[in-house]
Amino acid sequence: MKSEIISVGSELLLGNTINTNATFISMKLAELGIDIFYHTVVGDNANRLKDVTKLAISRSDLIIYTGGLGPTKDDLTKEVVSETLGIELELNNIYLKNIKEYFKKKNAKMTENNIKQAYIPKGGKILNNDIGTAPGVFLNRKGKKIVFLPGPPNEMKTMFNNYTVPLLKQENIIKSKVIKTMGIGESSLEELIKDIIANQSNPTIATYAKQGQVEIRVTGKGRSEKEVNQLINPIIDKINKKVGNYIYSYNDESIEEVFFQLLKKNNMTVGFCESCTGGLVSSRFTALADASQVFERGIVAYSNNSKMEELNVNKDTLEAHGPVSEETAREMALGLLNKSNVDIALSTTGIAGPTGGTKTKPLGLVYIGLATKNENYAIKTFFTGDRNSIQRKAANKVFAEGRKYLLKINN
Amino acid sequence: MKSEIISVGSELLLGNTINTNATFISMKLAELGIDIFYHTVVGDNANRLKDVTKLAISRSDLIIYTGGLGPTKDDLTKEVVSETLGIELELNNIYLKNIKEYFKKKNAKMTENNIKQAYIPKGGKILNNDIGTAPGVFLNRKGKKIVFLPGPPNEMKTMFNNYTVPLLKQENIIKSKVIKTMGIGESSLEELIKDIIANQSNPTIATYAKQGQVEIRVTGKGRSEKEVNQLINPIIDKINKKVGNYIYSYNDESIEEVFFQLLKKNNMTVGFCESCTGGLVSSRFTALADASQVFERGIVAYSNNSKMEELNVNKDTLEAHGPVSEETAREMALGLLNKSNVDIALSTTGIAGPTGGTKTKPLGLVYIGLATKNENYAIKTFFTGDRNSIQRKAANKVFAEGRKYLLKINN
Repeated sequence: MKSEIISVGSELLLGNTINTNATFISMKLAELGIDIFYHTVVGDNANRLKDVTKLAISRSDLIIYTGGLGPTKDDLTKEVVSETLGIELELNNIYLKNIKEYFKKKNAKMTENNIKQAYIPKGGKILNNDIGTAPGVFLNRKGKKIVFLPGPPNEMKTMFNNYTVPLLKQENIIKSKVIKTMGIGESSLEELIKDIIANQSNPTIATYAKQGQVEIRVTGKGRSEKEVNQLINPIIDKINKKVGNYIYSYNDESIEEVFFQLLKKNNMTVGFCESCTGGLVSSRFTALADASQVFERGIVAYSNNSKMEELNVNKDTLEAHGPVSEETAREMALGLLNKSNVDIALSTTGIAGPTGGTKTKPLGLVYIGLATKNENYAIKTFFTGDRNSIQRKAANKVFAEGRKYLLKINN
Repeated sequence: MKSEIISVGSELLLGNTINTNATFISMKLAELGIDIFYHTVVGDNANRLKDVTKLAISRSDLIIYTGGLGPTKDDLTKEVVSETLGIELELNNIYLKNIKEYFKKKNAKMTENNIKQAYIPKGGKILNNDIGTAPGVFLNRKGKKIVFLPGPPNEMKTMFNNYTVPLLKQENIIKSKVIKTMGIGESSLEELIKDIIANQSNPTIATYAKQGQVEIRVTGKGRSEKEVNQLINPIIDKINKKVGNYIYSYNDESIEEVFFQLLKKNNMTVGFCESCTGGLVSSRFTALADASQVFERGIVAYSNNSKMEELNVNKDTLEAHGPVSEETAREMALGLLNKSNVDIALSTTGIAGPTGGTKTKPLGLVYIGLATKNENYAIKTFFTGDRNSIQRKAANKVFAEGRKYLLKINN
């Protein structure tokens, strides 16, 4: 099946928005074993959208549109594509009712133009929007599959994963296992596993650098889940032998999720006290549903005063070693441990920039402290990148340190 | 001048690389006043690249290619496009010398396939690559301008800024102003300004829903910055009269940035105490450089215990009204105000889900508290979406409430 993606929106052509939708869908189509030959971006312009649609119909079996499903006048994807293909739009009363209920629940006024969203190309299957109001549509037309997805990435992703993937699944099963690593660069990792990658066609093995970490994606194709697993598992064993030390997940979990699961398994609670990460550690941890099972408080101690008042860091420590120091990180974690009844307290203090770096304490220097009733220590780490990268990488490292501690006590 | 961008590379179609090159070039072309009608991504495939090239030549005056200029076999942009247009490639001895010197300087071995990079379409002007080895090319062919740029973003950007922009400069400039709103849906907003949007061609006005907020983008075209401002400003005044209440920025700032600037202006400090947002408010605020100028601490009080111990919330309040209540939100903010020396304390407590909602306290219910030495109160709000949407929207609302308070005391 040949496919292409058409993203509709003048904001993309003006350089105001990056087309991450096409990237996301491409990755997912690749996992499904569907070939993608083109991405096209076109503005909110009926004539050009028409031209692009005609061309796509002439060369592809599956066309996925993103954007232009909203309630406003410049949202014209459904309208123009349907017209180009000679399909009528019909008012879908079930969806209209859904939209009405959505507005009622939100206690917001529904306007006339919201009704536009309930018009669906005849014969199309509605793809539910779990997050917003614009429904997606799946259309089977003369052997061509046409999919309309909304532009906002969170709406699009949820709709694609939950309602589109099941409709696109092919006879062959394609399954990917995503191995997550931390602490090694992409080229070094590839060097270590190059003999495993070489000459491998099923499963395929690919590495991706993402947000300071590297993922290894092992993708197998076969007639059954069992067959694919039999292809994938020996490869994963081989990879594990080479780079197992860097792997924290074999199931595409985030590092905070892995740490969370380990805490639950150990029946332990955690608290975070943060300076340079400014709440990011707590925020990422509490983005997990059920975080409350193991997490009960966090402190963002940004100033020296708050480090002393909230976490009982010694004034002498701050004066002798500075707020960015091994000693301060350790005392922060100890302070949180002593004031709360958590089993593990983790701390961060560092220089995220853009300013504040010095020769002895450069930009990117971060100390991470850990305290339990049995021990307490801090480690010195160093991260590259801009302020937000340094904060993100430091948060990753906090979760990784917590995981390391739990693995140690479990052994 | 009508332009389009063609990005060549299979990694883009597999979802391994995001096409930030097209976004960057689009933004720059918009600044130059050049209309961009299409982005296309095509893989490292000669036939499809040929088709895409023929189509582009038929509809555009300026075609910018990125990618496929490297030394390896799958780098075929220059070769295929030249062949499609009937242009010969010539060995450029000056550039060959450059490449040789580059390798000598790097103390690296130059391989045979590097010579491929010194072949330039006849009549083309070389665009120097200050960072890598692949030269770019600027071609003027039968009234069409064709530009070849390398794929790696840092090489491409430098080459575009230093050597391509001077060749593309036109008389017109394009400028966008981005107005940010909160508290109104896209359809209602458009309804309110539809008479301003109607029949408007320069400037153009478009609305975009983004992360639970709506942006209004006003884009003008003219011969000078002054002329464009004269077109844009009256439109912005008109929009302001209609929907000014919902606008928090006229300069594309985030809500936390607007709040931060207002705090600085008022020489006031802020603290956040969070239950349902779990650190997201502090985290977003401290993602801003210089946050430390106005922010000194935050508390993530996830459990009832931590609300009592850290924020002095009354046990009776929690028992009588529950942790998700106006009273608790108010007491949380007051507790933080009293224990720290911040001027404004803001709190969140709510039900972010996915579980925990009840009939009287449904999923999405969030109370936001505010305390200063003069007053304290909490407001009841309600958000839709999944856990992370609710957390994000609640954080937006915290910043919006802080802003509202500061605007009030400034009046």
